[in-house]
Amino acid sequence: MKTPVYWLPYLIFSTRKSSCRITCHLERAIAARNMATINQTDVSPSAATPIVVPSAEATSFIQRCMEKVGTHPEHARQLADVLVMGDHRGHFSHGLNRLDMYVRDIQSKTCNGDGVPVIVKESASTALIDGQNLLGPVVGRFAMAVAIRKAKESGVGWVAANASNHYGIAGYYGLQACKEGMIGMSFTNTSPFCVPTGGVYKTLGTNPICFAAPGVNGDDFVLDMATTTVAIGKVEIAMRKEQPVPSSWGLDKDGHESTDPEKIFHGGGLLPLGGAENTGGYKGYGLNVMVEILCGILSDAAFGPNIRSWTHPVGAANLGQGFVAIDPGRFADGFKERLQAFVNILRHLEPSDPSRPVQVAGDPERAHLRKCDSLGGIPYHVNQIRHAEELARQLGVAPMKTKE
Amino acid sequence: MKTPVYWLPYLIFSTRKSSCRITCHLERAIAARNMATINQTDVSPSAATPIVVPSAEATSFIQRCMEKVGTHPEHARQLADVLVMGDHRGHFSHGLNRLDMYVRDIQSKTCNGDGVPVIVKESASTALIDGQNLLGPVVGRFAMAVAIRKAKESGVGWVAANASNHYGIAGYYGLQACKEGMIGMSFTNTSPFCVPTGGVYKTLGTNPICFAAPGVNGDDFVLDMATTTVAIGKVEIAMRKEQPVPSSWGLDKDGHESTDPEKIFHGGGLLPLGGAENTGGYKGYGLNVMVEILCGILSDAAFGPNIRSWTHPVGAANLGQGFVAIDPGRFADGFKERLQAFVNILRHLEPSDPSRPVQVAGDPERAHLRKCDSLGGIPYHVNQIRHAEELARQLGVAPMKTKE
Repeated sequence: MKTPVYWLPYLIFSTRKSSCRITCHLERAIAARNMATINQTDVSPSAATPIVVPSAEATSFIQRCMEKVGTHPEHARQLADVLVMGDHRGHFSHGLNRLDMYVRDIQSKTCNGDGVPVIVKESASTALIDGQNLLGPVVGRFAMAVAIRKAKESGVGWVAANASNHYGIAGYYGLQACKEGMIGMSFTNTSPFCVPTGGVYKTLGTNPICFAAPGVNGDDFVLDMATTTVAIGKVEIAMRKEQPVPSSWGLDKDGHESTDPEKIFHGGGLLPLGGAENTGGYKGYGLNVMVEILCGILSDAAFGPNIRSWTHPVGAANLGQGFVAIDPGRFADGFKERLQAFVNILRHLEPSDPSRPVQVAGDPERAHLRKCDSLGGIPYHVNQIRHAEELARQLGVAPMKTKE
Repeated sequence: MKTPVYWLPYLIFSTRKSSCRITCHLERAIAARNMATINQTDVSPSAATPIVVPSAEATSFIQRCMEKVGTHPEHARQLADVLVMGDHRGHFSHGLNRLDMYVRDIQSKTCNGDGVPVIVKESASTALIDGQNLLGPVVGRFAMAVAIRKAKESGVGWVAANASNHYGIAGYYGLQACKEGMIGMSFTNTSPFCVPTGGVYKTLGTNPICFAAPGVNGDDFVLDMATTTVAIGKVEIAMRKEQPVPSSWGLDKDGHESTDPEKIFHGGGLLPLGGAENTGGYKGYGLNVMVEILCGILSDAAFGPNIRSWTHPVGAANLGQGFVAIDPGRFADGFKERLQAFVNILRHLEPSDPSRPVQVAGDPERAHLRKCDSLGGIPYHVNQIRHAEELARQLGVAPMKTKE
């Protein structure tokens, strides 16, 4: 079954944005060149004949790049795990595609490559964590581990972290809980991209929600979605293709709904899930604010429009994040079996298009995982591979080996 | 500031549906007559010169109707509190408009009018509650009180209830936590109205999410939203007005997006928040399933398509519901002040239409509360008043007094 593009909410955050976070001038120049390469094309593997890289090699490549710029080996490994899971699950915008951002963050000391997150405050089922400006995945994995421990002890663990950084796919942390038989949730705030209902300016992040719950025999339900209708990368792709976008994706600079990706991208912004007000956009806006309350407000991190710009970042990100683990065993017995029955009912519903079965959240990712298995690795767009080669050259590390 | 109609997600669930829950033939006949009265018009007060009823009298009327059919006085009071709050906040679909449904549920013994919910299982931060087929508000208030107690003790309280019934506005329970300085969340499953992305049939409920968080001096953020784009009542109103609806509201009987309210209402169904797949509807579908997992699946209540039909109900509802309280004091100090700063930033953003300030969730309801204060009561549509008079006559209780 082909994975529909709509199911990849994070697809293709272009390296333009990543590169723009570089702080030194020389690096900016290099980044501009990389950006020029990547921005010409859709970097999703479906856009050209993909080049397959075994997962272990992608992991190893990320590790050696990060270690080369001074990241603690264990932190490099944790970041690599999260990014490779992103690619493996088909969320290519949040995988290798963002490696240069993390490399530059460590190089420029915008983010710390060594240290340990600190539990500032805790109770039976809560913790507040100071992320110590470490890599987002280091903070996230630590925080979710605390949430899981507390859920094992008291039934629920709810953890808020401040002083964090971009943590990759939110789904990673939900799955971290799922692997322990828990329901897992995670949220993060982000740099502003979203225009509140009735507003004009980008004020809120894409503020994703992850909700993961375990079924039987490794099956699961994994919702991992931005609370904007789409990620900005999808607007960029439409712009390059000179194609209009659905009306619920974004606004122009005057706060009017627009189907012109140029207007959305240049000076406009993304609409919350639901689009305009009369199609329910105020609900997506509400969910977006809910995520910010559970992230920046609860943890006392940066929030909303106070978060540094993605294209012109200054200082540490100080992102806020939330991590929740719930032990379903504390509720009615047989949770996994009921969940399995429910998702199976949904999957076997009569579809409106007989060629496209009804899916549940996580199914497109599962299809991509199977695809990777059959290919013997992750299928990367040729430009992504070239970008990695360039990064390897710049850093003086061995380039990423592709599958024979 | 006029409350925009879009901000009333629950607006006008017509009594047709409520009435159809009546099980005995005589009652069905009475209901059909009531339905005919109400269905001719939009029962929102804006549709005709409203008739004002003091809140205390609306509360008292609901109590005497419920007591007359054998409901325990305390249960009648709790139901009245929840329904009157619905009307007070402008969610007229979930207030007095639904009284006859609750009356018939008690009369027909579909729902129990006396008893106490039972804590079946509990841990430091969780509880599973058997709602004993009591009125939804009785179960909901009890369950949220347990969640709040656990949050005071351990930081978080997460409660799942089964064997419950329609519990009115989800916002009531979020606000119950808010009044104790807590973040409150609540969810419920419902009879099927929503067609999953890519499907054809109504399989899932409107599955609302409430998230409420306290600010300073009684201010708050209260998101209370169905995870469908709109409630079915808005489709009914458009049908009566013979007006097309936005394309993201619903589907026809073949699972195709439709702007014809007749086709959506008769044999079709509601779309999840976001509408079709390419406008993000798969996200609303994911959120809708998330709610069901936290309700029917976690508590072992009825779930998804197994929940009895709204128009042809058979047996007890056995709804599943979720109640969460989080003590923000266990996280970074100054939560309420930060929340207040955040919502104030949002409210003072430049609006795209200068006559309509940017709002946050709960602001339209606040405006309606102020309107009620200035009127000295709740402004009901004349047909709602007539319906209440008819109910009073049927039950032999004193009719609801309107404001002099």
